[in-house]
Formats: sequence, structure tokens, C-alpha cells
Amino acid sequence: MSFYDKLKFTSDGLIPAIVQEQKTGRVLMMAWMNRASLEKTVETGKTHFWSRSRQKFWMKGEESGHTQTVKDVAFDCDGDTLLIQVEQNGAACHEGYQSCFFRSVENQGAEFKVTEAQLQRPEDIYGKKKSS
Amino acid sequence: MSFYDKLKFTSDGLIPAIVQEQKTGRVLMMAWMNRASLEKTVETGKTHFWSRSRQKFWMKGEESGHTQTVKDVAFDCDGDTLLIQVEQNGAACHEGYQSCFFRSVENQGAEFKVTEAQLQRPEDIYGKKKSS
Repeated sequence: MSFYDKLKFTSDGLIPAIVQEQKTGRVLMMAWMNRASLEKTVETGKTHFWSRSRQKFWMKGEESGHTQTVKDVAFDCDGDTLLIQVEQNGAACHEGYQSCFFRSVENQGAEFKVTEAQLQRPEDIYGKKKSS
Repeated sequence: MSFYDKLKFTSDGLIPAIVQEQKTGRVLMMAWMNRASLEKTVETGKTHFWSRSRQKFWMKGEESGHTQTVKDVAFDCDGDTLLIQVEQNGAACHEGYQSCFFRSVENQGAEFKVTEAQLQRPEDIYGKKKSS
């Protein structure tokens, strides 16, 4: 049986994909895939997604060069979430952090702190235009 | 500024929460929270979610005893995903696996394999009734 038969996409045809850096175990980002971007990810070994805000198919790193090489594609018990192990080239976050999860809650939610160093400024990654 | 002001919930008032085992870095599950379950999670230090299928507020482990003690709550650059570090008591998956992501793709998606041992059978966790 193909693993595609085990997956449940949303009514919009999407499935959330958690991206984890295999080497460190760090969770880098979460983004959405449609069937086409998942197939392209499996076929090419580079992560591809569907941008809900831009309504656009995209390859991670297509503008920034910060591509992700796929090491493993797992799916959960309900078939409604993907977990993709990658080798990350450069910073995963478009804000220049290694992981998009660079802020944590403090004091029971009253405040938060930045938990990692910014590796690059967005304008140094993309020029003046912000992208993902 | 409260971190709640940084978050974007869906039109249904939900936000996806990735749960990671802090000790091992293993991603255990992904589930959805509403504002009330997030507040309860932050307040009590035990993970609480909103079940979309059952339309119900629930605490992880309320039936199985497999609770999660919160060690860190992070949120991503877009404020639309949470990453929660926990100490996991027992198996996280209702199918008796440590992680819900116990299957991985093989042969470019044509097949998949089970990648970890089943620690318990669901009927030994819940009796005859399946739950989460």
C-alpha cells in the first residue's frame, strides 16, 4: 500500500509538515503541503510546500538558498501530519534564525524571551523583500 | 507584551501544537489547542488540547495516564504554530508507540515501514474503548 493512501488532507487539500533537523533534533519550522508539493518533496529530496498566504507552490530556499535535503518522511497515527527529517542549509527561518521557534514563553505567558541568536538579518538573506 | 498577543489562531480559534520530548528530541505528536487549552497548559504545566473530531477539551493522559509535563512553550516567527517541550509519561501515541510518527516512507512513497516498537497495545491502555 502506498503511504499516500494513509494520509488525510484537509478540505483545502493540505497537510501540515513539521520539519526537524536530523543532526540536532531541533524542530525548524512547520509549513503546509498539498499532494503535489509532497510528491515533489519525495521525488526530488528537497522540501516543497504550499503557501496559504501567497496561494503558491514553493521550494524551501528557492530565494534564500536555504534549502532542505530530505532524510526521512514520517507520518502520524491519524495520517494527518507529516514529520520530515532534513539536513538544513543555512538558517531555516526567514527572520534569520536557525529555527522558526526562537521565542519561548516566560512567567506563565505574561512575557516571552528570544532563545537563540539571529544568524543573519532578513535583508541580508533576501535584500529588501521579505520572503519565506 | 503577552505572548498571546503574538499568536494567530485559525478562524476556528485553533493553533497547532507540536509536542517534543525534551530529553530525547523526539517529536511525539501534533494536536490542536484553542486559547482555553493553551492557557490551561501554561497554568497547570500539563498539556491540554482541543479535539476537532470530538469537539472536546481534553488533557493528554486523562484516560491513559500518559500525561505530559510541560518544560517549555515556544512559538514560531509567524505566531501560528506552537512547539511544546515535555517530559512524557508512558507512550505518547494512543496506538501504544512512544511517538505518533512511527511510520516512515520507503521507495519514494510506494511503501512505508514501521520504525519503532509498539510499547503497549491500545486495549491494554484504554480497555476496549479507543481514545487519545
